[in-house]
Amino acid sequence: MTISSNEEDQNSAPGVAYIDGRYCPISEAKISLLDWGFLRSDATYDVVHVWQGRFFRLDKHIDRFLTSVKKLRMTIPFERDELTDILHECVRRSGLDVAYVEMLCTRGMPRNGSRHPRDGDNRFVAFAIPFSWILPPERREQGLNLGISRQAFRIPPTSVDPTIKNYHWGDFVTAMFEGEEQGVDIVVLTDIEGRLCEGPGFNIFLIKDGALATPAQGVLEGITRQTVFDLCAELRLPVTTEHLTEIDLQQADEIFVCSTAGGIMSVTRLESVPVADSRPGSITRRLTDLYWAKHDDPAWSTPVK
Amino acid sequence: MTISSNEEDQNSAPGVAYIDGRYCPISEAKISLLDWGFLRSDATYDVVHVWQGRFFRLDKHIDRFLTSVKKLRMTIPFERDELTDILHECVRRSGLDVAYVEMLCTRGMPRNGSRHPRDGDNRFVAFAIPFSWILPPERREQGLNLGISRQAFRIPPTSVDPTIKNYHWGDFVTAMFEGEEQGVDIVVLTDIEGRLCEGPGFNIFLIKDGALATPAQGVLEGITRQTVFDLCAELRLPVTTEHLTEIDLQQADEIFVCSTAGGIMSVTRLESVPVADSRPGSITRRLTDLYWAKHDDPAWSTPVK
Repeated sequence: MTISSNEEDQNSAPGVAYIDGRYCPISEAKISLLDWGFLRSDATYDVVHVWQGRFFRLDKHIDRFLTSVKKLRMTIPFERDELTDILHECVRRSGLDVAYVEMLCTRGMPRNGSRHPRDGDNRFVAFAIPFSWILPPERREQGLNLGISRQAFRIPPTSVDPTIKNYHWGDFVTAMFEGEEQGVDIVVLTDIEGRLCEGPGFNIFLIKDGALATPAQGVLEGITRQTVFDLCAELRLPVTTEHLTEIDLQQADEIFVCSTAGGIMSVTRLESVPVADSRPGSITRRLTDLYWAKHDDPAWSTPVK
Repeated sequence: MTISSNEEDQNSAPGVAYIDGRYCPISEAKISLLDWGFLRSDATYDVVHVWQGRFFRLDKHIDRFLTSVKKLRMTIPFERDELTDILHECVRRSGLDVAYVEMLCTRGMPRNGSRHPRDGDNRFVAFAIPFSWILPPERREQGLNLGISRQAFRIPPTSVDPTIKNYHWGDFVTAMFEGEEQGVDIVVLTDIEGRLCEGPGFNIFLIKDGALATPAQGVLEGITRQTVFDLCAELRLPVTTEHLTEIDLQQADEIFVCSTAGGIMSVTRLESVPVADSRPGSITRRLTDLYWAKHDDPAWSTPVK
């Protein structure tokens, strides 16, 4: 990674943010303590990544973000083009060639002592920071040891709409500590009835007899999840959304998780028990290879301006 | 309210925060964008109020806060006495005679690119701002019009422990917009099975045939809720925690909500239908009067240093 010759140089943590109408080094980017994005987690966000100087599926992330903003009855003071330009500019100023780029909108601060969210002055923020890996490339062959949370169940869609990407991670945090005690790398959560949902920042897929399946409900409709559907179409692999349980995981031939933070990542152990021969399976490999190959395909990616 | 002759004078928004080891005007108090307290709502807090220069039940709020911090496996770099002194100092510097005083602890920022909450540098923050009323004193006789949310159900305890006071307000925010459409002042949420839980920042009580009841499950164990129990003991009023539904509300003689943000507040309309004669009931009045009378009782309150 290279750092530009901008004013960010003197800061140890690389990254650039756009906040309150200006760009600044990420280390100086701060949000008002009284913003309801913090005090009420009343916010939505999206994360797109830049790989070797190119955004991957930027339009899809912006589409979802704008939909989420609207669902929360927030507004951002930009047209789509301007928002896009801000994301490009954050990356350009950061000098990062591989980056994790987040756009977010908070409720903001209430006007006139109001306690109602309609009175918030919504705040748009964006930032580009170094890429965050769930599974670093050098450990891709080793794969992940996946746990299943027994202590926390995924916040149900009847409480918080999971299709609006949000910061309500209380259940995930409980599960992450549980996972540490189990000695696993990551943890997937179920709903209260035992149906598989998702984990902290990732969706899950399993493969049985050549067909893929992923949970139908209680999950973020991840862009990488959608990308898996698209790759499956291209590879003529059958894929369905279903109600899945722990038993389905135990009987799977292959398991993988997917996220903007690392793409398609093989699960080679389930609760420390080997999945098949404990190495990434052939379908997961084909999907992973195609996923990364798409990163310089102009139909799937756009160069940072 | 009076403003001190401190450096806060020049700021329009009164209030003082303690953050990152120093005191500053609330308008300048900001939290790092990358703090997981924001990006993962991985935080806990407590709010105590100051009334006419005296903290109300400060020790109980600090007890709960320290318990919550411990449950989340966070630590704060202070002894209890130091924490107490910081709260006093925020109020003293603010010059506020009536204040809303919040203490909070966030996961902080991860060390070394970690994605695990064990690696957060926990951050303690406190601030004192003007009091925020759910029901201002001048409208106390009028009471509140209470709605019941049909669109959002309270995040269940199996997902996020409600006894750890938290910022997961997504369900509340949905309900607040729903309440606005219903034309009510505030909204209470039920769980998915229709059992009453709590509303945004308040617990609920109903009174039937001289006895009080409040939801047993899915709620914050509010300090004001506990205060109601204590006042009931003093007034020899029976009170129980139960599974309550909408029907119980409809059949109640009196209803009130309680919160640090306003104390005991009569509900005089339920979904715009009058409760009894649409005026605060006699038991609610007795409790409200005693609640405020306790504010200069040295057994229940302590003067700001």
